[in-house]
Amino acid sequence: MQLNIKSFIERGGQYFPDNPIVSRRSDNSLFRYTYGEMEKRVRRLSSRLAALGAEPGDKLATLAWNTYRHYELYFAIPCTGSVLHTVNLRLTDEHIAYIINKAQDKLVFVDPDLLPVIERLAPDLPSVKGYIVLAEEVPATTLSPVYCYEDLIRDGDEAFEFPEIDEHAPAGMCFTSATTGNPKGVIYSHRQIYLHTTALCMADSMAVRERDTFLPMVPMFHANAWGIPFAAAWMGSAVVLPGERPHVDVLLNLIEQEKVTFFAAAVSTGVEMMGLLKQGEHDLSCLRSIMLGGSATPRSVMEFYMDNYGVPIYTAWGSTEMAPIATFTHIHRDMLDASEDEKISIRIRQGLAAPGTELYLVDDDGNRVPWDDETMGEVYVRTPWSSTEYYEDERTKEGFVDGWWRSGDIATINERGVLRLVDRAKDLIKSGGEWISSQDLENGLMSHPAVLEVAVVAVPDERWVERPAAIVVFEPNSTPVSGDELKAFLAPNFAKWWLPEHYLVMEALPKTGVGKINKKLLREQAEEMIAEQA
Amino acid sequence: MQLNIKSFIERGGQYFPDNPIVSRRSDNSLFRYTYGEMEKRVRRLSSRLAALGAEPGDKLATLAWNTYRHYELYFAIPCTGSVLHTVNLRLTDEHIAYIINKAQDKLVFVDPDLLPVIERLAPDLPSVKGYIVLAEEVPATTLSPVYCYEDLIRDGDEAFEFPEIDEHAPAGMCFTSATTGNPKGVIYSHRQIYLHTTALCMADSMAVRERDTFLPMVPMFHANAWGIPFAAAWMGSAVVLPGERPHVDVLLNLIEQEKVTFFAAAVSTGVEMMGLLKQGEHDLSCLRSIMLGGSATPRSVMEFYMDNYGVPIYTAWGSTEMAPIATFTHIHRDMLDASEDEKISIRIRQGLAAPGTELYLVDDDGNRVPWDDETMGEVYVRTPWSSTEYYEDERTKEGFVDGWWRSGDIATINERGVLRLVDRAKDLIKSGGEWISSQDLENGLMSHPAVLEVAVVAVPDERWVERPAAIVVFEPNSTPVSGDELKAFLAPNFAKWWLPEHYLVMEALPKTGVGKINKKLLREQAEEMIAEQA
Repeated sequence: MQLNIKSFIERGGQYFPDNPIVSRRSDNSLFRYTYGEMEKRVRRLSSRLAALGAEPGDKLATLAWNTYRHYELYFAIPCTGSVLHTVNLRLTDEHIAYIINKAQDKLVFVDPDLLPVIERLAPDLPSVKGYIVLAEEVPATTLSPVYCYEDLIRDGDEAFEFPEIDEHAPAGMCFTSATTGNPKGVIYSHRQIYLHTTALCMADSMAVRERDTFLPMVPMFHANAWGIPFAAAWMGSAVVLPGERPHVDVLLNLIEQEKVTFFAAAVSTGVEMMGLLKQGEHDLSCLRSIMLGGSATPRSVMEFYMDNYGVPIYTAWGSTEMAPIATFTHIHRDMLDASEDEKISIRIRQGLAAPGTELYLVDDDGNRVPWDDETMGEVYVRTPWSSTEYYEDERTKEGFVDGWWRSGDIATINERGVLRLVDRAKDLIKSGGEWISSQDLENGLMSHPAVLEVAVVAVPDERWVERPAAIVVFEPNSTPVSGDELKAFLAPNFAKWWLPEHYLVMEALPKTGVGKINKKLLREQAEEMIAEQA
Repeated sequence: MQLNIKSFIERGGQYFPDNPIVSRRSDNSLFRYTYGEMEKRVRRLSSRLAALGAEPGDKLATLAWNTYRHYELYFAIPCTGSVLHTVNLRLTDEHIAYIINKAQDKLVFVDPDLLPVIERLAPDLPSVKGYIVLAEEVPATTLSPVYCYEDLIRDGDEAFEFPEIDEHAPAGMCFTSATTGNPKGVIYSHRQIYLHTTALCMADSMAVRERDTFLPMVPMFHANAWGIPFAAAWMGSAVVLPGERPHVDVLLNLIEQEKVTFFAAAVSTGVEMMGLLKQGEHDLSCLRSIMLGGSATPRSVMEFYMDNYGVPIYTAWGSTEMAPIATFTHIHRDMLDASEDEKISIRIRQGLAAPGTELYLVDDDGNRVPWDDETMGEVYVRTPWSSTEYYEDERTKEGFVDGWWRSGDIATINERGVLRLVDRAKDLIKSGGEWISSQDLENGLMSHPAVLEVAVVAVPDERWVERPAAIVVFEPNSTPVSGDELKAFLAPNFAKWWLPEHYLVMEALPKTGVGKINKKLLREQAEEMIAEQA
């Protein structure tokens, strides 16, 4: 029997027909329906794709927020044999055009508020045979041919039977930003997505259960919202989708109102939400967990949520290539009764390889390094659900070795096998031939009460080749702290040669399209600021 | 990346090296070691199998109780590419010889106390090239060539690397008893066992976790002890193995002493243990769940464990063909706050199809029947981990249809998709053209306080073709109850024509090799007893 995505939507619709899906509209009102209704709409939509010219294997793009219609597309597209290509709407026009052309997308499903993007690009998208606006009505648009999503559903066949699809057939596609050059594409087969979903549902990983209510703030337009949409449908979990451009106040309201049990977001969102929580009374007792990812969660953030709300923050590590999750926080059985403080020391690490996943660390000379929690190395990883190549891209050669993905992440592993990311290979500061972790320094500075956000980057140094520079954003109402004071604050916990050479202040840190701190840009800005100061 | 059994033992040894495995010896003492030690012994053993003539694809038999050595064989055999053929030690000599010859087993691993069985059969087992006694020393024996298990381990290579095996390669083999004729063999591939294990680990099914301590009383010599050995190693769960011929008092002591969290056994064991619990003080507060299977658990048994010990009894349904589990108890989210009484009404059913599993019901005319909880039909089922044929056996034709297994179980399904087994097709009583469920009547009679055990079987009837007869075993110290009284006890809950025609009393009910009530024999005995009474 083939491993197919249709299992997810069929199980959700058949066994959990009354379980709720809540989706925020652009006017802030909430759309509510159930898995039973959703399954019927998915079948209707699937039945109409062939008429629009979509054939098995064709890539169909979505440019959309986390909404119920996007959720439907997660099933309607792959369950017909076409490929769900989620386009990262935060990319530049140039990159969006590049990836649609690279994928040769046949159709583009687009949220109304993102129409201007596609209207600008349409003349340069020769493969696209039609545009579907995810709305009740199609607004005035230059796109052609253009279809209304709700018309397609209205005309569809509720009794449409999903075909049995070979598990190795492509089901999804996503592009990951590259340090230089164009984004790199990754294909996910039905099998990969199925196996990733089994891992999410395990009691010792994310433990997706019917009784849960998930709020994935992590975008459905990138890395499949960590696979939550698939797992939630399979288990029948309630889902709350935050819609278009949600601000943290919207998220907090949704968590409280809808009694969310599991909130998943980028670390930056968790930090931003913390700022808002400090300003008012909120009840987060419904949450069993917050999962933050994309970068390491500072200890101070974990402590804030635990001390004030009793909510544990869990960490996962992965990447677009890993579909996306490869490790989860895990508290070993002999630590179950440990203090919350000790547990946070475990949760700030990236956790254990998910069942089926294998990983090891490699030093600069290509040798495996010991699991002693001291020796750093680049993480090499493979899982039964990860991709083993970039889509028609020569960079496969650098990125993959014999089915193992070279993550570019530098880490240590302790004797229990628990991963601790130390830095991105490209963010490591190589000072006098030794490695300094920008991330460890950032965590140290984040625990200073006046610091809201911080980044440490390498700046050129004549003597040491590179030296660390700290760029700090202070809390809105705090008294700014001098560089010398920050240095003194760090000193007890770091070797002297690790301490940043420069301390710069900014109003906000530049971010990338996926919400991570843009260290490439920051390095340039820091260098300029230091030159100006000199 | 291939789905391989080696993932289980490698993960257990690598990430949970200190977690305990406890195994009862024949002298009632306990052997204790860890996954770290076990993994090394498994590698040693694997490294020696080739020297004994075992090649990839060869079937190697085990005739053994639930012990740590048997647990080691669960990995050492398939991880070299050979096939773990667990022989049901409760079968007749004739059937044991048949299945070893049918499988063409190359080696037989045997527990010392089972040597006499194999000694009797050895002259008729031409495929067997060697016997390995699972002990420190080989006792005097007529077997030849014979090896000592611990010698093999001592001479083995701790650094042996398991090969990467194609996931479709055979890993396990088990024979299931047939109603008539020889047992039927089923092969499990690495993939099947891997996928079954993912299902066991899911939070909404058996939720196997590292923090658990499993006591599988269900035999490793049949249906892989429901897959618990594989899942426990993968998650690093502690395991307590009850060894040779464990009695219920031994089980109760192990549960209390070792703080077992999950106990898995045949319903008959749960009933027997209940008898012992009534006689003394016991603390079962360590248990999060008891899973009973093999037949339906009577409501009275569920109530006993819940009312007295707060332990929920969970139900799974499956078969040797299903590797073995296909459904699990599931409490829907809107029932989480229901009374324990209501939850028992859910738990006595066979539950929801495990994620990935599909099933439907078929009536006598081959039509699918509605999920209205009234209409009975035979369960047809398929899962990504189930087998789709019997091993070199013509009975595949009757047993499987287009990849679906015809279970021979008659069930209803309610609107929520929850399965309720009504009877074995062959145990149904066909009275005047209508179906009567022997099982429903048995459940009704079991709730009578004087009844310890009961079976209802069909006996021939001139007018109605068949009529139900109840065979009752009374509680040791109870006052026997007349047939008329039992009939009156049932009357409020059943249609009049369902009520058994005959009420017979026995000291004990005959059981099959796997501990189920032998209804075939019982029908003959009931018919004789009725004839004698007449």
